[in-house]
Amino acid sequence: MQVIIASTSTVYGSSYLEYLLPELKTHFNNTDEVVFIPFARPGGITHDEYTAKASDGLKSCVNKVTGLHEFEDMKKAISNAKAIFVGGGNTFLLVKQLHELDLMKTLKLSIQSGTKYLGTSAGSNICGLTMQTTNDMPIVYPPSFETLGLLNFNINPHYQDPYSSSTHKGETRETRIKEFQTLNSRTVVGLREGSWIKINNSEITLEGELPAVIFESGKLAYEVNPKSHLKF
Amino acid sequence: MQVIIASTSTVYGSSYLEYLLPELKTHFNNTDEVVFIPFARPGGITHDEYTAKASDGLKSCVNKVTGLHEFEDMKKAISNAKAIFVGGGNTFLLVKQLHELDLMKTLKLSIQSGTKYLGTSAGSNICGLTMQTTNDMPIVYPPSFETLGLLNFNINPHYQDPYSSSTHKGETRETRIKEFQTLNSRTVVGLREGSWIKINNSEITLEGELPAVIFESGKLAYEVNPKSHLKF
Repeated sequence: MQVIIASTSTVYGSSYLEYLLPELKTHFNNTDEVVFIPFARPGGITHDEYTAKASDGLKSCVNKVTGLHEFEDMKKAISNAKAIFVGGGNTFLLVKQLHELDLMKTLKLSIQSGTKYLGTSAGSNICGLTMQTTNDMPIVYPPSFETLGLLNFNINPHYQDPYSSSTHKGETRETRIKEFQTLNSRTVVGLREGSWIKINNSEITLEGELPAVIFESGKLAYEVNPKSHLKF
Repeated sequence: MQVIIASTSTVYGSSYLEYLLPELKTHFNNTDEVVFIPFARPGGITHDEYTAKASDGLKSCVNKVTGLHEFEDMKKAISNAKAIFVGGGNTFLLVKQLHELDLMKTLKLSIQSGTKYLGTSAGSNICGLTMQTTNDMPIVYPPSFETLGLLNFNINPHYQDPYSSSTHKGETRETRIKEFQTLNSRTVVGLREGSWIKINNSEITLEGELPAVIFESGKLAYEVNPKSHLKF
């Protein structure tokens, strides 16, 4: 598998995908066309608008970005793709459509048999075992929370440390993840903005400049440094 | 109906329910016993622990707080209760259990026929039409997102304005609510911590010291002041 799982598409002060471009140029080396899955629709933009944005973001890496919605046979498009990019937005919306169109398994098999994958935010959430550690609002009701399971843990993208000066009494991100773990024993990786996980066949590493926060069931949360192997 | 729908149980710098006590003393006037629904389990605490906390918080207002889990016949307990308090925690967990135990309708009928109600956070979310504007993580999969519908709009508790100095690129609360409205036309009330909604029969008012943020479909978000009637 050749997979990039990014916390965010955009870091503060730079343009869409810009911080990832050096990595993506290698990742999409010799890739003519990327199939883009726009179902998460950030801010409610249309599939066409979102595909145009992805195409613009990747223009220095690949010749052509085609939206999955443009294909008549989406399963075939996923199976035949050389590379797939799933963009961010609302994870509930993304997962609902992948299940309802019966694409989850096809997508997993395609990636496992060598299709290059890039996910950002919601597109990264779905690489975990379930979408249960998303930050998104349940704006639609998906038939299941199960996702691709390319990793044997869950992802929390846009991981955020508590503001030390905050007077807000809503749950912190850490509290939410720990609530998840009172009912589920699986590990959660809190991926800070600017970080990504790289799957290179059987090797899974943390990339970018920041440490990630690891929540293993029954342990105190701890950090791991960039270039660490993520094996739990 | 006699209902209090609070953004949070606790405001910064004071103890559990403390800021609400003047209101609750009136609300629970002549109420001997409150039935407490502890299903949202904040931080994963047990039903007994959570009931003890609620009991302690309400000790200056009522003689006795009994956890719903202590009753053999929960439906009967809800129907017979003079007052009910649903505490905060994880909304998915709360809603899953209310549906699975077939208590949602019983609870609604009980409140509509005069049982006094207090909800905080997750217990407030369920007063809207659906739980789809919760901030919580989907740590369990409920059979439906439908809730009590005591209000003809949805609630976003712990409403938070964006930090103007933030470099975080994850969605703001406002962005999330607007994403909800790209697919759902219903109104959402963003209730800041320290605010509550009071239903006094057919009158619905905003209480507390802060304005609430109103998201009506197709309009710019706007604020309403305390004591406003919430009619959309």
